[in-house]
This record gives sequence, structure tokens and C-alpha cells, in this order.
Amino acid sequence: MNLTLDRTASTDAPILDVLAERWSTRIFDPVAPLDEAALASALEAARWAPSANNTQPWRFIVARRGTEAHAAVVATLVGFNQSWATDAAALVVFAATTEVDGRPQHFATYDTGQAAAHFTVQAHASGLHTHQMGGFDRAAIAAAFGLGADITPLTVMAVGALGDVAGAPEPLRERELAPRTRRSIADSLVGA
Amino acid sequence: MNLTLDRTASTDAPILDVLAERWSTRIFDPVAPLDEAALASALEAARWAPSANNTQPWRFIVARRGTEAHAAVVATLVGFNQSWATDAAALVVFAATTEVDGRPQHFATYDTGQAAAHFTVQAHASGLHTHQMGGFDRAAIAAAFGLGADITPLTVMAVGALGDVAGAPEPLRERELAPRTRRSIADSLVGA
Repeated sequence: MNLTLDRTASTDAPILDVLAERWSTRIFDPVAPLDEAALASALEAARWAPSANNTQPWRFIVARRGTEAHAAVVATLVGFNQSWATDAAALVVFAATTEVDGRPQHFATYDTGQAAAHFTVQAHASGLHTHQMGGFDRAAIAAAFGLGADITPLTVMAVGALGDVAGAPEPLRERELAPRTRRSIADSLVGA
Repeated sequence: MNLTLDRTASTDAPILDVLAERWSTRIFDPVAPLDEAALASALEAARWAPSANNTQPWRFIVARRGTEAHAAVVATLVGFNQSWATDAAALVVFAATTEVDGRPQHFATYDTGQAAAHFTVQAHASGLHTHQMGGFDRAAIAAAFGLGADITPLTVMAVGALGDVAGAPEPLRERELAPRTRRSIADSLVGA
């Protein structure tokens, strides 16, 4: 356990503790059981995200460690992600209904990002850690889980308890303790 | 003021109050000044959203009521949105860097959705209301604000104080008081 690990963002304006303290670990506890109540709350938070015309384009695959589904998701991850994400108690695929009756859904990806953000905020509030990954084989996920062409897998989120940071291999520990950085808000303003 | 208006979601699992209570109003106070501190906190929350390889693809245009920028954004909104969103103290355009050095950025839209979600969560915690719109002329926004081809406007968010729901025109009041609904989580699970 790393109860003293403080990854709180150094913010320029006050924000909710849960938003400042949330970060994306790569060091998960490989044996701690999944907190099912916390997972249910995180999914529920995702459920109540806003979306264009309330279309709710998000779709989820929840793969728990030790199941065939988990092994199938792990097999789609690129090597570096496999090396640490396999430890997480769950891998949650965030997918979107990107097509309905042949019509592209222009806000499906954006809105699924919103649902994922709600998930992570609630997960952290409930004591879970999360890390989203883009490095996986989308076609392999679609094939393994029989997804139709209208559903696009977007990210895989590792979800679970924080692992032993001090005892983690050097490359992971180093990344974990590196300062958290973001561009300033001023540098994100355009068109002014 | 509508201090007794309760739009709290009826959740199947406990979630943070701010996530349950956040909803997308269409009734903004047309005269209340913008709470600049709350806006700064909401932008700061967006700043600390996660993104693929920390690319931070989000870009913002902040258009305050009474400015030329505000009028320019209003002019791009489709008619129904114009009818209510013009009242909001600010219109914030969420755009994404969808291309870098000619390479498409596959997670830019999703990650900007995450930043928008962080913004809305913090905004509501800070007493602001928000409503995201997809109904606007993207090309007109790009032209009005001189955005390059690498930046794609995704949504316009109305941001401000809640208006007088009881005194609002019938079609708006009716939508405002309609029950909030979402598909069940079970219906969002795929591939199981």
C-alpha cells in the first residue's frame, strides 16, 4: 500500500479534490479483489453522463481478472500495456455506437469520452484507480466479443486497487513519480 | 431563482452528489453576471483531464455575453439553440486538435469529451449550469475565429446561472421538468 503517495495536481484555480487527486497509475495490485460496489458506482456515474439528444452512445465490456473475457482483452493490448495492465482487477472496454441505421453518429466518440470521464471521477471517489489505454487491437476486440460494425471500441480502461509503487520495476516507478504536468489554460485558448 | 428545483438523478448505485445533480438546463439567467472564479475553476478542471499520452488535444474559445465573440458564436447556432442559449453568460466552444503535422489524432475527440465532462462537473460544483450543443455551424465557427484546418470545433457549451424556470416559455419549461432518463447499465453491456 502507498497511502502516502500524493499525486495531487498543482492547480491554478481551486477544483474538487477528486478531480485534483485523480491520476492514471500503471501500478495495480495484482491480487486485491475487485471492489464490485465501487465498480457499480463508477458505471452508474458513466450512465448519467450527458450526450447529444440523450443518445447515450457508450457501450461497455467489463472483463474481470481471472475470466476468459479478461484474457481476451489482455491479448489485444500492445506489449507495454500488457506488462502492467494485466494486474488490474478489471479491464473495461469503452466502445461507442458510431453508426445507427447506416448514419454516422458524430457525437458518439466525444460523448463516450464524457462517460469515461464520469467513470474515472466516480471510481477515484470510490477508492479505485484507473488508467485508460489507446494501445490495443480494435479489430481483435471486435472479433473476440462479436461486436457489430456499428460499435467501435475506443479505449480499454484498467481498473483496480493501487499496487506497491515502491516495489514496482524501475521504469514503472519512475513514470509514477514523475511530476504531473499540463499546458496552461492560456495556451489552450484559441481564436481570441 | 429556482432553489427548490431538484433534478437529481434516480440512481441504481450511489454516485457523487455533483454527478447525480448535474443536468443540462435550457433556462439561463440573461442578466446575472458571469461568475469568473467559477469559470476559471471549470476550465482548470478541464485542464487536468486525462488524455492519450498527455496530448491535451482540447482547445477552448470563451465568449462572454455582450462581446463580439459571443455574438459570433450565437450566429453559428441553429435556431432552437439560439432561442435559449443566447441568455447564458458565456458560450464556450470545445475544439480539438484533430491533426498534428498531417497525422490524424485518433483520441482527440474522445479526450476533448473527457475535458468537457470535467468542466461540467466542476462548473456544477461551483454553482454554474451548463448545456452542451452539437447544433451549430462548425465551418462558420472556424471562419469567425480563424481556426486552422488542424482544429475541429466539436461542441458549444452554454455556461451561466440558472434562470427563472417557472417563468420560462412553455416548451422550455416542459423539457426542463420532464423526468431524467437513462438506459440501464445492463443494456449498455456488450460482448458478454
